[in-house]
Amino acid sequence: MAFITLTTDFGRKDHFVSAVKGAIYTLLPEAKIVDISHEISPFNITETAYILKNAYKSFPKGTIHIIGVDSEMTPENKHIALLLDGHYFVCPDNGIMSMIASEINPTKVVEINIHDRIETSFSVLDVFVNVACHIARGGTLEVIGKPLPEITKMVELQPQIVSETKIIGSVIYIDNYGNVISNITKELFNQVGKGRKFTLSAGRYNFKKVLNKYSDIVDFKLPINERNSAGSKLALFNSGSYLEIAIYKSNLQTVGGASSLLGLDYRSSISIEFEKETSA
Amino acid sequence: MAFITLTTDFGRKDHFVSAVKGAIYTLLPEAKIVDISHEISPFNITETAYILKNAYKSFPKGTIHIIGVDSEMTPENKHIALLLDGHYFVCPDNGIMSMIASEINPTKVVEINIHDRIETSFSVLDVFVNVACHIARGGTLEVIGKPLPEITKMVELQPQIVSETKIIGSVIYIDNYGNVISNITKELFNQVGKGRKFTLSAGRYNFKKVLNKYSDIVDFKLPINERNSAGSKLALFNSGSYLEIAIYKSNLQTVGGASSLLGLDYRSSISIEFEKETSA
Amino acid sequence: MAFITLTTDFGRKDHFVSAVKGAIYTLLPEAKIVDISHEISPFNITETAYILKNAYKSFPKGTIHIIGVDSEMTPENKHIALLLDGHYFVCPDNGIMSMIASEINPTKVVEINIHDRIETSFSVLDVFVNVACHIARGGTLEVIGKPLPEITKMVELQPQIVSETKIIGSVIYIDNYGNVISNITKELFNQVGKGRKFTLSAGRYNFKKVLNKYSDIVDFKLPINERNSAGSKLALFNSGSYLEIAIYKSNLQTVGGASSLLGLDYRSSISIEFEKETSA
Repeated sequence: MAFITLTTDFGRKDHFVSAVKGAIYTLLPEAKIVDISHEISPFNITETAYILKNAYKSFPKGTIHIIGVDSEMTPENKHIALLLDGHYFVCPDNGIMSMIASEINPTKVVEINIHDRIETSFSVLDVFVNVACHIARGGTLEVIGKPLPEITKMVELQPQIVSETKIIGSVIYIDNYGNVISNITKELFNQVGKGRKFTLSAGRYNFKKVLNKYSDIVDFKLPINERNSAGSKLALFNSGSYLEIAIYKSNLQTVGGASSLLGLDYRSSISIEFEKETSA
Repeated sequence: MAFITLTTDFGRKDHFVSAVKGAIYTLLPEAKIVDISHEISPFNITETAYILKNAYKSFPKGTIHIIGVDSEMTPENKHIALLLDGHYFVCPDNGIMSMIASEINPTKVVEINIHDRIETSFSVLDVFVNVACHIARGGTLEVIGKPLPEITKMVELQPQIVSETKIIGSVIYIDNYGNVISNITKELFNQVGKGRKFTLSAGRYNFKKVLNKYSDIVDFKLPINERNSAGSKLALFNSGSYLEIAIYKSNLQTVGGASSLLGLDYRSSISIEFEKETSA
Repeated sequence: MAFITLTTDFGRKDHFVSAVKGAIYTLLPEAKIVDISHEISPFNITETAYILKNAYKSFPKGTIHIIGVDSEMTPENKHIALLLDGHYFVCPDNGIMSMIASEINPTKVVEINIHDRIETSFSVLDVFVNVACHIARGGTLEVIGKPLPEITKMVELQPQIVSETKIIGSVIYIDNYGNVISNITKELFNQVGKGRKFTLSAGRYNFKKVLNKYSDIVDFKLPINERNSAGSKLALFNSGSYLEIAIYKSNLQTVGGASSLLGLDYRSSISIEFEKETSA
């Protein structure tokens, strides 16, 4: 069974997404196509990387992920296909893959070279679909491209360990609930913090604890009417192990989310100051 | 063929929905996954119940419906799986099912107890997917949970029969066209009204008729330029048999819908006063 | 394998789309259902035609396309099923098909007549699904309808050749990036222009060139910091061969798109004035 996923900034109103699906089904009627996201902010490769990094691992090994964000081929934006962590990716070489593959090296990368006769302003339809279906049929990467020694590196919004006691990170994503996700991982936090007490500063607020579940903010021993937990600010490591600032049971349309309530936006800084002495 | 549906407040931009789909396909490559809605207002279980109640019956018997709204497990929000009307539901026990099952009793309900080793802030991915795939493979509910004598009741926004001549209902949903749906069903209307004349009051307007189709508002005998039906207010029993207040051919983005034009919002009251004497 | 596509103005929050999918799967469990768009502006048949015209050809021959826009049956809005260009369409006879089929004649058209016992305000669910599944199972159009000699013509927003040197067109669609699409095709442009120089006027701006790819606006010979191409206005023939006015790497949420920046809206006029003499 061939699984092909789509991650684009096409939106869902226009014909772009369905034209791509139709083209895949025409070549490979038995394919299973899954939308990862089509609501990426136009040309935003940081968002793309965050979403895809958190989604791709759930799919079966061998899944082929097409990325249609900033994908028009130019002399400086080649098309690539690669095998990483048992998954295939077909995408522009604009730095997206370096963000997805920051901890894992690709097994194989090729620069796609089947464009000879294709002049197109819709690369995903006219190029990526063909490459994905070629791979889905068991074709090798070498047939549709030439080996590429290195992918384009895009190193931005990395957390900084500024001293033994301080990490400065940034907001890299704001989710559907207005919750704010930073680039500080649980792993980095533990590695620098070594179990010490800390103060986390995010916008106008400080936090002394990082929770593991949203509902850890609730004291279930109190009677319901004394809890006031809805609307509480909290910090937690989310399901992707990123440090997230959230509002318990937030609603962007009514009370607002962490983003609006704490004045945090994409690229806002979030810092953690650990105490000098290790706590017992 | 295993059909699994998803109803969540995750939105479609984030990785949540696709991560869940990937996890299902990994366990059950031949599954057919169908989105019911991912645009539920955050944590809104009344909306969830209305949408799912109107959607689930169209699916083949045996379909498994995953509900990911307010689904984090807490001491007061258990996870349940149940069989109702030939369909399976995997969801939090937060009252949603009592609203869906208001007229039909579940055949079987279990409290899911496979959480032993799972500490998670993403229950749908880590718990519900496993339960759904277990059921899809023909597994019994008893294997993944223990029988639960009663589900949590959530009785809100019920229409009131205040006298022999009066029903007071509430707005429970506003749809894509801005049409306003009440909790008064055709059945209740007929049962109380017994064919009598009536005045329906909704916001600033009264109605004397309830139609069966939107276009019943149009007098097709008139020449087109004398009709003025676009923009007309009307009351009808919608395809789910709920009393709905609509604007004929409304457009929320331009002229507005019934909601904005009549000043009706979620929870607004809608009342029907029947005449004392039965009309001929 | 039966492919069925859906194009509606239902939106994705309500139960409408999933109820239709459930009904199709109940009749035809092995169907492959593909969403073309559910974000059509309510009742907008020009948008519907533009989107479907650009999407349907990518699908395998024999695909069945259900159109649920302005689809309630009235004495003046019959339901039709037709075969065009190897594809089936099930839709209201409100002019949509005449816009999709402007260059190609349908092979066969029938007026659907299976409504005898169906009183419904949800035609797509109660009528179109049955027709589509009938066709998918290999049934003929004659069984579900009677031959219709002519479909309703809707001729609006056609480009005008006002003289040997001038074409006046209109904006027919604004896409996800805010790019503005006109009804002037590359074919018409070449036929009237015959290679002559021209001035294209769109809103407050004039263009002397029509590009083939968005990135043709970039001079890749310049150093990156001297290019200033992001945000540049450009005219191009898009992947559907329509004349499009775009902003290079535009973002509606931040800097805006061609629509807002050039003051162009649905139905705005776009004109091309060719020079008298043929250029070399």
